[in-house]
Amino acid sequence: MIERYQTIEMKKIFTESARFDYMLIVEKAVSSVLAKYKMIPKAAYLDIQKKSKIDLQKIYAFEAETKHDVIAFVNQVAESIGTNGKYFHFGLTSSDVLDTAMSLQTRDAFEILSAEIKKLKTVLKKIAKKHSETICAGRTHGIFAEITTFGFKLMGFLSELSRCEKRIFLAKKQFEICKLSGAVGTSSALGHQIEIDVAKKIKLNPEPFATQVIPRDRHAEVFMSLAFLASHLERLAIELRHLQRTEVSEVIEGFSLKQKGSSAMPHKKNPISAENITGLCRLIKGYAWTAMENIPLWHERDISHSSNERIIFGDAFTATHYCLKRMNLLLENIYIDTDQMLDNTYKNGGLLYSSHLLNHLIQNHKMDRNQAYQLIQTATFKLKADEKLENVILSSPQLKKYFSNQIVRDIFSGKKHLTAIKNRIKKYEKSI
Amino acid sequence: MIERYQTIEMKKIFTESARFDYMLIVEKAVSSVLAKYKMIPKAAYLDIQKKSKIDLQKIYAFEAETKHDVIAFVNQVAESIGTNGKYFHFGLTSSDVLDTAMSLQTRDAFEILSAEIKKLKTVLKKIAKKHSETICAGRTHGIFAEITTFGFKLMGFLSELSRCEKRIFLAKKQFEICKLSGAVGTSSALGHQIEIDVAKKIKLNPEPFATQVIPRDRHAEVFMSLAFLASHLERLAIELRHLQRTEVSEVIEGFSLKQKGSSAMPHKKNPISAENITGLCRLIKGYAWTAMENIPLWHERDISHSSNERIIFGDAFTATHYCLKRMNLLLENIYIDTDQMLDNTYKNGGLLYSSHLLNHLIQNHKMDRNQAYQLIQTATFKLKADEKLENVILSSPQLKKYFSNQIVRDIFSGKKHLTAIKNRIKKYEKSI
Amino acid sequence: MIERYQTIEMKKIFTESARFDYMLIVEKAVSSVLAKYKMIPKAAYLDIQKKSKIDLQKIYAFEAETKHDVIAFVNQVAESIGTNGKYFHFGLTSSDVLDTAMSLQTRDAFEILSAEIKKLKTVLKKIAKKHSETICAGRTHGIFAEITTFGFKLMGFLSELSRCEKRIFLAKKQFEICKLSGAVGTSSALGHQIEIDVAKKIKLNPEPFATQVIPRDRHAEVFMSLAFLASHLERLAIELRHLQRTEVSEVIEGFSLKQKGSSAMPHKKNPISAENITGLCRLIKGYAWTAMENIPLWHERDISHSSNERIIFGDAFTATHYCLKRMNLLLENIYIDTDQMLDNTYKNGGLLYSSHLLNHLIQNHKMDRNQAYQLIQTATFKLKADEKLENVILSSPQLKKYFSNQIVRDIFSGKKHLTAIKNRIKKYEKSI
Amino acid sequence: MIERYQTIEMKKIFTESARFDYMLIVEKAVSSVLAKYKMIPKAAYLDIQKKSKIDLQKIYAFEAETKHDVIAFVNQVAESIGTNGKYFHFGLTSSDVLDTAMSLQTRDAFEILSAEIKKLKTVLKKIAKKHSETICAGRTHGIFAEITTFGFKLMGFLSELSRCEKRIFLAKKQFEICKLSGAVGTSSALGHQIEIDVAKKIKLNPEPFATQVIPRDRHAEVFMSLAFLASHLERLAIELRHLQRTEVSEVIEGFSLKQKGSSAMPHKKNPISAENITGLCRLIKGYAWTAMENIPLWHERDISHSSNERIIFGDAFTATHYCLKRMNLLLENIYIDTDQMLDNTYKNGGLLYSSHLLNHLIQNHKMDRNQAYQLIQTATFKLKADEKLENVILSSPQLKKYFSNQIVRDIFSGKKHLTAIKNRIKKYEKSI
Repeated sequence: MIERYQTIEMKKIFTESARFDYMLIVEKAVSSVLAKYKMIPKAAYLDIQKKSKIDLQKIYAFEAETKHDVIAFVNQVAESIGTNGKYFHFGLTSSDVLDTAMSLQTRDAFEILSAEIKKLKTVLKKIAKKHSETICAGRTHGIFAEITTFGFKLMGFLSELSRCEKRIFLAKKQFEICKLSGAVGTSSALGHQIEIDVAKKIKLNPEPFATQVIPRDRHAEVFMSLAFLASHLERLAIELRHLQRTEVSEVIEGFSLKQKGSSAMPHKKNPISAENITGLCRLIKGYAWTAMENIPLWHERDISHSSNERIIFGDAFTATHYCLKRMNLLLENIYIDTDQMLDNTYKNGGLLYSSHLLNHLIQNHKMDRNQAYQLIQTATFKLKADEKLENVILSSPQLKKYFSNQIVRDIFSGKKHLTAIKNRIKKYEKSI
Repeated sequence: MIERYQTIEMKKIFTESARFDYMLIVEKAVSSVLAKYKMIPKAAYLDIQKKSKIDLQKIYAFEAETKHDVIAFVNQVAESIGTNGKYFHFGLTSSDVLDTAMSLQTRDAFEILSAEIKKLKTVLKKIAKKHSETICAGRTHGIFAEITTFGFKLMGFLSELSRCEKRIFLAKKQFEICKLSGAVGTSSALGHQIEIDVAKKIKLNPEPFATQVIPRDRHAEVFMSLAFLASHLERLAIELRHLQRTEVSEVIEGFSLKQKGSSAMPHKKNPISAENITGLCRLIKGYAWTAMENIPLWHERDISHSSNERIIFGDAFTATHYCLKRMNLLLENIYIDTDQMLDNTYKNGGLLYSSHLLNHLIQNHKMDRNQAYQLIQTATFKLKADEKLENVILSSPQLKKYFSNQIVRDIFSGKKHLTAIKNRIKKYEKSI
Repeated sequence: MIERYQTIEMKKIFTESARFDYMLIVEKAVSSVLAKYKMIPKAAYLDIQKKSKIDLQKIYAFEAETKHDVIAFVNQVAESIGTNGKYFHFGLTSSDVLDTAMSLQTRDAFEILSAEIKKLKTVLKKIAKKHSETICAGRTHGIFAEITTFGFKLMGFLSELSRCEKRIFLAKKQFEICKLSGAVGTSSALGHQIEIDVAKKIKLNPEPFATQVIPRDRHAEVFMSLAFLASHLERLAIELRHLQRTEVSEVIEGFSLKQKGSSAMPHKKNPISAENITGLCRLIKGYAWTAMENIPLWHERDISHSSNERIIFGDAFTATHYCLKRMNLLLENIYIDTDQMLDNTYKNGGLLYSSHLLNHLIQNHKMDRNQAYQLIQTATFKLKADEKLENVILSSPQLKKYFSNQIVRDIFSGKKHLTAIKNRIKKYEKSI
Repeated sequence: MIERYQTIEMKKIFTESARFDYMLIVEKAVSSVLAKYKMIPKAAYLDIQKKSKIDLQKIYAFEAETKHDVIAFVNQVAESIGTNGKYFHFGLTSSDVLDTAMSLQTRDAFEILSAEIKKLKTVLKKIAKKHSETICAGRTHGIFAEITTFGFKLMGFLSELSRCEKRIFLAKKQFEICKLSGAVGTSSALGHQIEIDVAKKIKLNPEPFATQVIPRDRHAEVFMSLAFLASHLERLAIELRHLQRTEVSEVIEGFSLKQKGSSAMPHKKNPISAENITGLCRLIKGYAWTAMENIPLWHERDISHSSNERIIFGDAFTATHYCLKRMNLLLENIYIDTDQMLDNTYKNGGLLYSSHLLNHLIQNHKMDRNQAYQLIQTATFKLKADEKLENVILSSPQLKKYFSNQIVRDIFSGKKHLTAIKNRIKKYEKSI
């Protein structure tokens, strides 16, 4: 029951009724080309354009009888057209219409996603720029490693998002496919020229070698592109959840006054949007798995793909769109606690700068790497709760000879990091 | 959009409205126990039982404000109760109600599945018994191996189904869990006795050590039991699709007169039910993957599981129920062509009996295994299109000395197989 | 290349050579039963027991020729036996030996896992008992919720582990299967009694209705039981990684003096064991999905399962065993910082106790739930950095009338939680 | 234990020892650039180039001590260099070397795959061309649909393979990444210019925004490209297995004289190569899911990806390479029974042509679609076992008025199909 996450935009594309609308677009395009080649009378073509109408209830009634939804659709629309209805669906097999309609549906759905991805890029870039010099702890293994900036962190996400956008672009492009080559893909009924002309008309490309259907690796690529995007959103959501942990408290999801975090615990402000997104991403990845299983259909196709595609197309695009929108809302209302970010970097006495101490010994004092490593490791392991590493260095008999006050100040200022970060953002921001 | 596959029975359990009904059952049970221990006034308890009413639209209105569906639910129901509404949801945290309600929902859903599984067992057993001596080709690698019977084949499926039924029984049983231990599972608010009494009242077992929620490995086991059942149905569906191949034609799915197989090819009778089931099984397995990802929640739980559980519980049970029902319908109307089954066994001249020729040489003539194997292999590889293997044996100078007419007749009658099959069915039919 | 994670115990079971040893065990057991029923000469049986020997190089040479590893195995062993070698493998098909041997292999592998699981239970229980009253923050959504104890936390993991142990027990039991029913499972060659007797001899149960092979749902259940265990280990590993975060620092993985955490950052102590386990668990789950795909084999079986089973059995058991051992080592050497745990609970001024403030207002002052919630929420949201919530309560004009000093002290002591926790542990510790 | 499927080429890339070789390539390239910028002495650089040597056993000894394989590697190689060894690994963090080395490894592995894919394309194209006019049944739902040709069938596979090739090309290209930006990706230690120069030297591109590691979506794309290729091979393998079914018998996998199909059934020729490939493809897809789970690493990376990447990179490339090679061997030795293909098309009396009968009625006799459909369906459903549909048409009072002898002959000759197929192959063969 994806309804909970339904967005208005996706709903327009993925209802039963919308599906028939897309199918009718295909049929109409075919009839216009058939008329051009005089394969159906011009009058029939004109009637199809003008009179054809979808009546969902009648389709369902026909389907109950014929157990075949496309035949039910064809019968109902043909009926709405009148005598010339017999030229409706001429020379086509069901999959011609179904698969080509699905291409149109998917193209529209991708366009909606792309708009939302663009928004996400914009908001990410905006925050990243604003916080390009907001120092915070870089953490590897969950442990403080070196300092970074919040903006730099987000540039990494932005860069990944750009790759996802490219994957989605490629998935969309390879799925702009028209397939009207009939029962087993040979075009023996209508000839290939009809397919070429229709494809052009509805801005798709003909499938060079179809079976009865468009090969399902193309569909799987669509879902994989969503799975990659979902994994990106999951990584971003997890980052934001980490930063909202009580002990970290560097960001807070927007929290309106009337909102409640827990029915039992009145103090709670929870990262529920980020968590919600995390969970839906697992779902989107699950759909991709289903889509992969649809690839090895039998011979000129079996129809096993169809029953699950009825669900996974609409549900996966809907869930992905919902996640994107929710992430955008989250980021637009996010509270970033820059003081807390800086405070946190001091938390363990400045260990974040240990690698620079190490490099100083090796580079400027030509010290053996192992010896240097042990000197610094020993110092850091001895660091007491409220001590600062820079003081330990300056007061250590073994170490102070290698470090002047100025050098220590420089290292612990983060200057070198900030400069490096600024340069890198400048260099690459336009490419992502 | 699982609606296409919605069954009446599952719809009763998995709507938004039904979900609140189950939650109310839990709240009412809690209030009765709280009253018993005088933790809330008796009058409050009575009001809760009598006056509490769900108003979906009001809940949605509250949720729009609080962004928290359980608090919205509590507010609305409390309002319906009046002054004593303040004792509604007393001492509980949202997950107490949500998770315990999900246990009740799932129990009901499992019961519906179980009834349908029983039907499937009955129909499988009926066909298996009827065809226990219907000789057909046993195929390994898709190649004729030895003869078997159609009934014996089905007993294998029945046996697998029994294992799935057991997995479902165990998954159901381990999920009959009540969790009322509050914010982090310690029962510090209400004490454990309340939980014990409520559990008893609604025929569940208390979770011994919960976090804020019932641990999600239990939920994953629910989905895994569905995935196993789906894999069983998939295997059965694939078997039936194979047997319906044009070249095999041993069974036909029921096909009503008005039904159409293809909008382009009027002759087609297609195994669409079996294919439909195959495809949905891929979906059900996909949901199980999502459920597995929900297990490693953070600390005393994060809520990432929730967004996808809103979808996968209803959708997976619905898809599974639909598949079971459709498989039952398929089998109730299946046409089994026993003549074709027998005809097919003759197709390659009787190669199906080669292993018995081999055993005869080894067992009765003490021939070296390799020598015997080569003798028979040579004979079979030389077999021409319309030749019968028994004649090749009887006319081969190298072979006829080992085989009397009677022995050849015996081997090629399949007697030994039929006897073995009958005995095995007799021995095990009651246990599955 | 699973070698990196190979354990001595699993290596004994899952080499090519060990596999042939298990196959020989099956063949010997069969020959003893065949001799009992005089289906092969007693002398042949005795020769098989005494003379049969595996020569891996010769098997490989035969396989290069026959392209069939079981036939190669049979030929080589038969050769080692001499004249009576022709009675070796009498009446069997390859899968009889392969599948039954795999049952034996898997049983042994499960036993090794079980021993390691027992160790894990012991170490978890030991730490849980020791820290049953070690107060720490309970976190939901990663946010402080209510206090709990470290011991209680571990009891939850122990409880989940017990469920995994049960799943493994059941998976093991249903896989103790002997299959000697020949080409398509009918026992037409040897009769079922042979299978029954051999099964008894090697302590397995006969497969009631096999195809050529033991049905692959049984194998999938084996892998699913490993996937559940892996998910448990993953959850535990993630918990330990969270607790080792710099900002949390409640536990530290054992760190020997010469160990290095980073080649660049000398201060680093990283949760690498927990991370290593997390990653391998993803792999183990991947194998389970491969195993699920093996269920719907064609007809009386196709052999597609075999190529991946050659890898996934050994690799999944090896990875699981490695993870268990590494988790045991981690826990045996874990440093638990109880002071830090307590310190952390004070971090946000005592918000961890907010639900108990709420309950006090509702229960003892009969306050309306919503009103109470708002009063407490307001207080908590106003809490300043270094303020304590208990002081805020006692100095708030709106709140102090509801809270005496004694009541505030009681609530903030955690007494109620500790008592509840102790009782629960006492009640359930024996059952898990 | 992937060893069974190890290929010589992949073994060269994916051993522990090869891994260190790739790491040394990276280190050497870095040292040359560092020397250029005078960050290390020129003499140190020269010593690193000349004296550095890998000693696997010593590395293992160091690793046992430090529990850190890169530090062990650095220590051992530094030792081999002598005094200037202290400049080895200067300014780098482990992941700089590990991830960049993995890029080199993967590039080489992809190149090996690509060569094998090219071979597969060549052999597919060769067979496709040869059989472009070999008429065979087109089957949808496993049921005869319309005729096609074996060559046309293969063109569909070839076309899919080209898409897989493109995916692999893109996956390879996006993975040609150099990452030398240090602890949290800021290049604060060495500066970005070093990275740029090294990247150029080893023909990679710098990662614009890394964390400590190259983002894992890139790695997942590598595995997804393998999963798509595997799914393609699976579809092809399943097609070949279908065509080898006893009842179909249109192709046979090469079968040498000494090869054995079954230890019990001497007549068996089984499609074991195709089955073997099918099973391994399930494994390759399993690895892809593991890789997807590695994407959402924590903060500037946790190391959970590493433990499984040690296995999945080598194993997935090895399994894929093995499958490709085996498929090539299979196709090079395949026996295609063109007579049987043609015979099979006659099997059900010519139903394969029903859609053309339908189109004739609608197009040339302007018959209402439904009426035409019913006429033809009735005729086909009445067709008896040995009857031919063309005769039924010509002798049906209702139908013969619409069909002249010539028209029937034309329709049942397949001419229209062959022409359409030839044209399509001609049009598209160069593009795939």
